[in-house]
Amino acid sequence: MKIERTPESGIITRTPFPNSRKIYVPGELHEISVAMREISLNDTKVHGRSGASDPNAPITVYDTSGPFTDPDFEIDVKKGLPQLRSSWIKARQDVDQQETISSEYGKQRLSDPNLAHLRFAHISKPLRAKPGQNLSQLHYAKKGIITAEMEYIAIRENQGIDQQIKELNGKAGTLAHQHAGHSFGANTPKSFITPEFVRQEVAAGRAVIPVNINHPESEPMIIGRNFLVKINANIGNSAVSSSIEEEVEKAVWACRWGADTIMDLSTGKNIHETREWIIRNSPVPIGTVPIYQALEKVNGKAEELTWELFRDTLIEQAEQGVDYFTIHAGVLLRYIPLTAKRITGIVSRGGSIMAKWCLAHHKENFLYTHFEDICEIMKAYDVAFSLGDGLRPGSIADANDAAQFAELETLGELTKIAWKHDVQTIIEGPGHVPMHLIKENMEKQLQHCQEAPFYTLGPLTTDIAPGYDHITSAIGAAMIGWFGTAMLCYVTPKEHLGLPNKKDVKDGVITYKIAAHAADLAKGHPGAQYRDNALSKARFEFRWEDQFNLSLDPDTAREFHDETLPAEGAKIAHFCSMCGPNFCSMKITQDVRDYAEENGLMEESVITKGMEEKAKEFAEKGSEIYL
Amino acid sequence: MKIERTPESGIITRTPFPNSRKIYVPGELHEISVAMREISLNDTKVHGRSGASDPNAPITVYDTSGPFTDPDFEIDVKKGLPQLRSSWIKARQDVDQQETISSEYGKQRLSDPNLAHLRFAHISKPLRAKPGQNLSQLHYAKKGIITAEMEYIAIRENQGIDQQIKELNGKAGTLAHQHAGHSFGANTPKSFITPEFVRQEVAAGRAVIPVNINHPESEPMIIGRNFLVKINANIGNSAVSSSIEEEVEKAVWACRWGADTIMDLSTGKNIHETREWIIRNSPVPIGTVPIYQALEKVNGKAEELTWELFRDTLIEQAEQGVDYFTIHAGVLLRYIPLTAKRITGIVSRGGSIMAKWCLAHHKENFLYTHFEDICEIMKAYDVAFSLGDGLRPGSIADANDAAQFAELETLGELTKIAWKHDVQTIIEGPGHVPMHLIKENMEKQLQHCQEAPFYTLGPLTTDIAPGYDHITSAIGAAMIGWFGTAMLCYVTPKEHLGLPNKKDVKDGVITYKIAAHAADLAKGHPGAQYRDNALSKARFEFRWEDQFNLSLDPDTAREFHDETLPAEGAKIAHFCSMCGPNFCSMKITQDVRDYAEENGLMEESVITKGMEEKAKEFAEKGSEIYL
Repeated sequence: MKIERTPESGIITRTPFPNSRKIYVPGELHEISVAMREISLNDTKVHGRSGASDPNAPITVYDTSGPFTDPDFEIDVKKGLPQLRSSWIKARQDVDQQETISSEYGKQRLSDPNLAHLRFAHISKPLRAKPGQNLSQLHYAKKGIITAEMEYIAIRENQGIDQQIKELNGKAGTLAHQHAGHSFGANTPKSFITPEFVRQEVAAGRAVIPVNINHPESEPMIIGRNFLVKINANIGNSAVSSSIEEEVEKAVWACRWGADTIMDLSTGKNIHETREWIIRNSPVPIGTVPIYQALEKVNGKAEELTWELFRDTLIEQAEQGVDYFTIHAGVLLRYIPLTAKRITGIVSRGGSIMAKWCLAHHKENFLYTHFEDICEIMKAYDVAFSLGDGLRPGSIADANDAAQFAELETLGELTKIAWKHDVQTIIEGPGHVPMHLIKENMEKQLQHCQEAPFYTLGPLTTDIAPGYDHITSAIGAAMIGWFGTAMLCYVTPKEHLGLPNKKDVKDGVITYKIAAHAADLAKGHPGAQYRDNALSKARFEFRWEDQFNLSLDPDTAREFHDETLPAEGAKIAHFCSMCGPNFCSMKITQDVRDYAEENGLMEESVITKGMEEKAKEFAEKGSEIYL
Repeated sequence: MKIERTPESGIITRTPFPNSRKIYVPGELHEISVAMREISLNDTKVHGRSGASDPNAPITVYDTSGPFTDPDFEIDVKKGLPQLRSSWIKARQDVDQQETISSEYGKQRLSDPNLAHLRFAHISKPLRAKPGQNLSQLHYAKKGIITAEMEYIAIRENQGIDQQIKELNGKAGTLAHQHAGHSFGANTPKSFITPEFVRQEVAAGRAVIPVNINHPESEPMIIGRNFLVKINANIGNSAVSSSIEEEVEKAVWACRWGADTIMDLSTGKNIHETREWIIRNSPVPIGTVPIYQALEKVNGKAEELTWELFRDTLIEQAEQGVDYFTIHAGVLLRYIPLTAKRITGIVSRGGSIMAKWCLAHHKENFLYTHFEDICEIMKAYDVAFSLGDGLRPGSIADANDAAQFAELETLGELTKIAWKHDVQTIIEGPGHVPMHLIKENMEKQLQHCQEAPFYTLGPLTTDIAPGYDHITSAIGAAMIGWFGTAMLCYVTPKEHLGLPNKKDVKDGVITYKIAAHAADLAKGHPGAQYRDNALSKARFEFRWEDQFNLSLDPDTAREFHDETLPAEGAKIAHFCSMCGPNFCSMKITQDVRDYAEENGLMEESVITKGMEEKAKEFAEKGSEIYL
């Protein structure tokens, strides 16, 4: 039906963003350099002084796109990305390089000559903790160690704004000077993220750093509610469509637009080989749902799943470098009948697989009974748990029901067990939830799961808009992000209908970047409003190019603008297609401002004394003497 | 640059929705018939009994598309829609038909032979209140009169669900029978909207029925926070693009997808003629911002505006049938300096025009000083106020500032004056507001404006996503709708960038239907969840066609599905492209359900005793004896 080919570099998107360059901020504790994107801005034209202009400082933004957007990097997908973290891992001296891979299945695939054309050419020998060692970031954090990963994250989370504020305090830059009250004033971050703060949050279990030692290509990032809200993009082939080639580009593409992690949900043939390609070329952590592949191995017959088979699958994937595993260990036998009267039963694939297994065997979920065995595997590679919500509601009618919350309590118990082993743990959440029931989800999660990071799929706030579920869910995602959810799993327009194509992936990612950023603003994350202010200032000053370049999707912003006003001249015009030259509110406002300034109404003394009171006083004296 | 032509019926979209028919529900107090859309559903296949099936009752939904989707109606845009409300208005015996139009400008346009090719052919002689009469719905409501409009609205708001529940109570229909606990059970509306309730809400000023006596074509609807949340779509030509033809179709198109009202924001040439075409063919109320046209008449020079010119414009538009006017009477001279230090100053076009006028003349806003004169005009035609928020924030940085809230207080004062004249009044709201500051907007509006309906533009919850502002604003719109906003003004993907095309209008409308419906669910509006439940049940039962047809946009849902699985067979298949045959969670859940049923776990006695407790008890005895 389809022909799978190994990827070629040519199909990988790697154009840099407009007016942007990659910058690298050095660490102080460790020899690291943290990648960010710096957007250059045009000057502000000064009204009333022909030709005069004030410079605008460049804006630095968080960058998930990896080396692909750095033209100085030579990208060869056949070799994979440079191993950024390799030396950090080795320096800790707690890993052994294995002679060969440990998984039986992995060995079979490796020795199958029919797979040669699909196989990644430079498969590394896997690393594993030395016997008796635990190399999870949680383990280091508890011991008081600030790892290179932690310092990387602290610098990254500050988005270069700490640097910029230091510089601006030194000289009278336009941004700080003209709009002190807005750009930094009331919203100036009081403090920035420190490496020690990162360590504390990880040690407390409130934040997770998904960094498998076998995925040294990834740039460290953190999932926790006291950091920027993160988003995940799902990709994956299936029995019905897609090729390896498309999957690698889909991952690169999703990272380009802002995905902080990628979940590879492949269910088709050659999952093992596809995953290798994706991990080797992914600058962000990779998550999987290992039960999907396990089911593949028993030809889709859930009742034939065994612990041994599953265990081998975990090791296979851990040695490839998967950073976090979704494990549906909370789907307990006694919870299954709670779903029987639901409108949409069990909608989680993993959940329904485990439910079927439990019923078929009259036994408790083997992921639950073998949970400590799983922990032993996780901590040998620093794979994080993402405890799956197999009983999440699949419709508004089923939201916040007994099945859902029963499972959540069990996930809380499992978190304690995972933490006993110093295994990092995230909790997955719904699903379909109407707005008024969203907060309860967050509150119950914090309560039952001891503040382990929450990672939700939306939630979708209505069921009636298939084709637009990126939007129905962005509403819920923004809200639950504000309430404290640390990572939002994106939903694409194809949800419920089909497989996302590249456009759908981009739409899903951008929509979730919006939800996450709206949540950051509402939470008052240090410096979140910085980019909004810079963009709004550009908009007000008719710096069209800067407005495009500062936006989440410069290509679409420019394209939409050009649809009505394609001429280059229009991009510096002081009006736009919405209103035409005479009706432009921004132009009129500028006139108002100039007028007020001429009449001495812009003096600091007037403003700072409290304009409103002053205005009332003027008004009482009669408005004629006011102006 | 463009050639304007009169519209042809051919370009007007009027395909009925799939599997849908128009039904008309009769009134009891008045001789009225209320249009709704009824969606037929397929049978549910019964598992385990080959060929057996249970019927699904049809679903009735609120319908804003007007006669255009009724194939029995002959549409001729040159004649306009049938005058649904004509006889109701005349029966009240409080109107006079004028011999000619009253506006000087309108007379000029009417007698200009150069406009003949653009002019609507069947212009009616305008109606006006008899001297001393007030014919606003607020006036009737206060007098205890339940108008035909009010009864129409009561029936319409119930969406036929009251009827259906009555029927289902009579017979054991599938929906009520199999899913009593979900479809109607906990969410069964306790009460439905009555005509008397509509009257009370209007009398209290908490709801507004925009129904100019000169727009008898419109189907009555209500804007108030104890009713379904409504949405408005803006259309309008401008100096830069569009034709009359496109504008009429844009209105029909917006109504098709769910716009409850249309604002005609035209600023180009021939506004007068375009508006006539739109009103005569609009089944929903039309709003305008009369200051735009007034400014047109003085060639864009705000300082040349006069009360006399504006007054003539109000009468011109009132006699054409505009149902509500945005009036920026709250932009007071003393508030203007409060905007000078904003990042984005004044972003409302109307607001900036008035600010410019005030500064140029050193005088108070003439809309404020002539407010009672305006009321006299409004009540003679039953035009409703939409008090404009000329000082709304245009960026996150400017949200909830002194200028914004000072104006809001003034709008509250003006509401009292309008109500003294029994003129119906809505209050416009922002704008750009981060999530954590949204609630304060609603609370202050309720407090200052005595519960007059709130009508907000979004609000946008971040500034950084031009090209996606339908989404940044849908987040805020859904939230503020939940908090009590009665109508949401849509934002299209082209916001800040250009003029919306047909796709943008549809995207904006559907996105806002999502926000409004999410708000209705969260508010617990009677029967709001009915459609969600029907769609989710269809989804769970793999009734693909029903899932498409019940969705807000059946065309897109079907198109997205067909992109990956185009075969007709796939639409009845028990799997889909996301997972393939073996991995489908819904299929597995059905197996679980069948299994549980076979093992006696589905009996009512077990379920109703509280499954969770029961399950725990079983578990304590050991799960082996449980199953």
